[in-house]
Amino acid sequence: QENVQVYGIFDIGVASIDAGGKERRNKVDSGLLRTSRLGFKGSEDLGNGLKVNFVLEYRLNVDLNEGIGGNYRSDAAGVQGSTSGPARQQLLGLSGNFGTVAFGRMNTTAFDWAVRYTVLGASAFDVTGNNAMAAGSRINPVGDIRLSNVIAYKSPAFAGFRFDVNYARPIEEAAAGNGRLETAQLGLYYDNGPLSVGAVFDNIDGHGNATLTLSSLAFARGAGFPPGTTVVRYDDLEVKSQNLGVAYDFGVLKAKATYQRDKFMDLSANKIWGVGVEVPVSAKGTVHAVYSASSVNTQKKADSQGFSLAYTHNLSKRTIAYAGLSWQDNERNGTSGIWATAPDAGKDVKMLAAGITHMF
Amino acid sequence: QENVQVYGIFDIGVASIDAGGKERRNKVDSGLLRTSRLGFKGSEDLGNGLKVNFVLEYRLNVDLNEGIGGNYRSDAAGVQGSTSGPARQQLLGLSGNFGTVAFGRMNTTAFDWAVRYTVLGASAFDVTGNNAMAAGSRINPVGDIRLSNVIAYKSPAFAGFRFDVNYARPIEEAAAGNGRLETAQLGLYYDNGPLSVGAVFDNIDGHGNATLTLSSLAFARGAGFPPGTTVVRYDDLEVKSQNLGVAYDFGVLKAKATYQRDKFMDLSANKIWGVGVEVPVSAKGTVHAVYSASSVNTQKKADSQGFSLAYTHNLSKRTIAYAGLSWQDNERNGTSGIWATAPDAGKDVKMLAAGITHMF
Amino acid sequence: QENVQVYGIFDIGVASIDAGGKERRNKVDSGLLRTSRLGFKGSEDLGNGLKVNFVLEYRLNVDLNEGIGGNYRSDAAGVQGSTSGPARQQLLGLSGNFGTVAFGRMNTTAFDWAVRYTVLGASAFDVTGNNAMAAGSRINPVGDIRLSNVIAYKSPAFAGFRFDVNYARPIEEAAAGNGRLETAQLGLYYDNGPLSVGAVFDNIDGHGNATLTLSSLAFARGAGFPPGTTVVRYDDLEVKSQNLGVAYDFGVLKAKATYQRDKFMDLSANKIWGVGVEVPVSAKGTVHAVYSASSVNTQKKADSQGFSLAYTHNLSKRTIAYAGLSWQDNERNGTSGIWATAPDAGKDVKMLAAGITHMF
Repeated sequence: QENVQVYGIFDIGVASIDAGGKERRNKVDSGLLRTSRLGFKGSEDLGNGLKVNFVLEYRLNVDLNEGIGGNYRSDAAGVQGSTSGPARQQLLGLSGNFGTVAFGRMNTTAFDWAVRYTVLGASAFDVTGNNAMAAGSRINPVGDIRLSNVIAYKSPAFAGFRFDVNYARPIEEAAAGNGRLETAQLGLYYDNGPLSVGAVFDNIDGHGNATLTLSSLAFARGAGFPPGTTVVRYDDLEVKSQNLGVAYDFGVLKAKATYQRDKFMDLSANKIWGVGVEVPVSAKGTVHAVYSASSVNTQKKADSQGFSLAYTHNLSKRTIAYAGLSWQDNERNGTSGIWATAPDAGKDVKMLAAGITHMF
Repeated sequence: QENVQVYGIFDIGVASIDAGGKERRNKVDSGLLRTSRLGFKGSEDLGNGLKVNFVLEYRLNVDLNEGIGGNYRSDAAGVQGSTSGPARQQLLGLSGNFGTVAFGRMNTTAFDWAVRYTVLGASAFDVTGNNAMAAGSRINPVGDIRLSNVIAYKSPAFAGFRFDVNYARPIEEAAAGNGRLETAQLGLYYDNGPLSVGAVFDNIDGHGNATLTLSSLAFARGAGFPPGTTVVRYDDLEVKSQNLGVAYDFGVLKAKATYQRDKFMDLSANKIWGVGVEVPVSAKGTVHAVYSASSVNTQKKADSQGFSLAYTHNLSKRTIAYAGLSWQDNERNGTSGIWATAPDAGKDVKMLAAGITHMF
Repeated sequence: QENVQVYGIFDIGVASIDAGGKERRNKVDSGLLRTSRLGFKGSEDLGNGLKVNFVLEYRLNVDLNEGIGGNYRSDAAGVQGSTSGPARQQLLGLSGNFGTVAFGRMNTTAFDWAVRYTVLGASAFDVTGNNAMAAGSRINPVGDIRLSNVIAYKSPAFAGFRFDVNYARPIEEAAAGNGRLETAQLGLYYDNGPLSVGAVFDNIDGHGNATLTLSSLAFARGAGFPPGTTVVRYDDLEVKSQNLGVAYDFGVLKAKATYQRDKFMDLSANKIWGVGVEVPVSAKGTVHAVYSASSVNTQKKADSQGFSLAYTHNLSKRTIAYAGLSWQDNERNGTSGIWATAPDAGKDVKMLAAGITHMF
């Protein structure tokens, strides 16, 4: 009679962050290794090989006085359609021989790609994500790349190949008049024994003759667009993102590499590289190391590089202890931060952190 | 040891709405057939024929980045006591031979009445509800007729007769000084084989010498009261609503009809009619058709009529696929909308929608 | 496979409150005896005597249209770090022979102390809590003494003795510049047969050279500090609270007494006394009586005394019916309220209340 399973992750730790030009921050924190969350899921066999499943998954900020999904906040500009927020996933899926069709709010293939090919992806140690976020990349695991109002399709595998499509419409609408954004993503994956290759193409297009100041658009503020007072027409808004990832399991270690190229309208492209390894050092322990560099060219020039080293120890199948350090070196106007702590332009950021991840 | 059951509905689909004078809206939507929700409920036998039960049920907007209960929002005027909102039900009930007494926030008998006697009631296809909402009726299933701070009583059945009483106090209080509203509802029901008849009398009374501008009152804004700058005393506020419903199961089809009359203070009464059928066309499929008309006389004259045709197909006992169309024809100053998409006065609205309802 | 247990309390009743100088308030209310809540918890044995557990527990306002955790609200001054709020507890604990270490948001030892040594503690009948709240005491069960960003340690018992330490940092930070508060609590407990003694020392210290107006600080507003326009440096902020409690189980009744002394910076100390009894009068029924007095000296002088008498009846192990009365007598400028209903200075408050507590 129980058609729903309650599940989640409780991740809590302590972080000390030194962001150049800012006061050092020592604090209990939520979700340093994996985002804390509470979820409800279930599935039903409809017969004829058809299955329906649902996922309701909400962010938790377990260090704070916040509810399930955290507290509701509009972002700095009062825009609600921010990519991070209370709901991680609210999706219904239909699966069969044809693959899976899903509707709702969900992790896009861009998110899956980032977690798959990035060492320490979607954690506080994710320097590739830090650089991607500062560069305004759409694929930015620290920022939780999810979309609302999505229709998604995941193909079955054909000889190691499979593909994902995500279509979201609208992702942000003009408050008045004719204007909206839509996004389409194509993910291509190839898995063959120890080798895995994945590419994601992510396009955002504006439609309509309404105009907007870029600062009114949550996405544009994070995207390295020219300063916020710039007024553009929805029809002129366009972002193209190409992303390639490779992973190879050598047995003694797993190596992963990523390359991301993001082009905003007619501005010069931004680029982010990442390379990392995961080295099992005992039956329960793994060392993770990752290096990333970025070149931001959309407006003022900014370069950043980051490095993280972390150790994870499986206390059980459900509980992980972790500790690590992370370092972001910002050059010229670089502002890559760590864990939402951004330095003054060109200054470095360093973090020491440790904690526990408990899955339930 | 498990004293609580987690349950809910995940309803997601796609709707295309053309509201006269507005841009067409194509969008993934939540709750087109039944409102998406997540709930927790349980009961305990206290002995001596006494039972206690609780329901905690929260709205979900599964297409959006919102938490359990949706995001918290004050309504347009900053008033929090809006009838729709995060909590569908938060009630504790005590049941015995005497019937049931319940306390908290809950569906009133007005809501039960609307769902019972209206074809496609409380769905996006509910044209009777659309007209009721535009007419400011208290019984408006699209708006989810629930009340907070309720004491309710449901009688047992006597020879097919039973009655419900709901008393809510206060439903909206003056921010300062002496002023509040209270509401009392009486529902009378008669069930005999294929026949069901129900009547609901719903009175709202203001008390106190404080004055208020009607626009400060969530309920008055939706109720077709004269324009918002009108200042009245709480003592002068009064709404009387009479509602009659009939359902008859002919076997080959189920027919339902409703009549609603709402009188606001000393203004002319508004009236809403509805008639519909549910026709089983196969073991798993049902066709639903409903027509509704309204006459709004509180201020400027407005007439509306609406029609919906939908098909539901039970993929299983817990999963329904649906598709349908809905049409609202507004005459004079009519503004009946569909699914929160309101047309310019006197213009029509049309919707095509399809989706899946999964119960868990 | 089920690693999480859903649990909670549904407490709902009716209260009539007469606060001097205000209109009488008759209302359905949530949590009159115990705060309504919904929680998720679980634990895992990690081997070697080590255990991990988590608690996610959120407040419910079951009389209102609010979600899990209630609706998100900044407090009157727009500050988010208020001690009451959506999350009661979000903690991860590690337990072993060494005791328990916990991280997150949680009930502090100050809260445990208040509930342990106060008759009707943390209920609407908690006159000791009313006086503590009006006196600005940190240990104020009606206000739910919890802290975020806590690291806590609970020792094992040594010959009846045990101690708890809570450290929270920062509890409130300057919006800009260098300024924050940290709090440290030490709880000492001795249990020997019918006797229990507990003391809690609670210190709050400010750090940094930023200045603030006291009214910008949620904690200071409730703490009886001088009027809000006072500007102080974080470095000068200091609160010291000493609290002693005793309980003795005589068999025919349980007696409890508390003494609290709170000193804010260099102002005169505030004092709160409480004494009460719990008398089992039948297999299922208990009478509770409590008297409390306070002397507030921080600014204008204010004295208050309060008395409550309540009866609880266990309908089952999980369900309690209750009824009681509460009276606050405010002298000079006293403003002790009942259940968030505060009188005009020096006026009395009286409450009659009854309800049901259902645990699941």
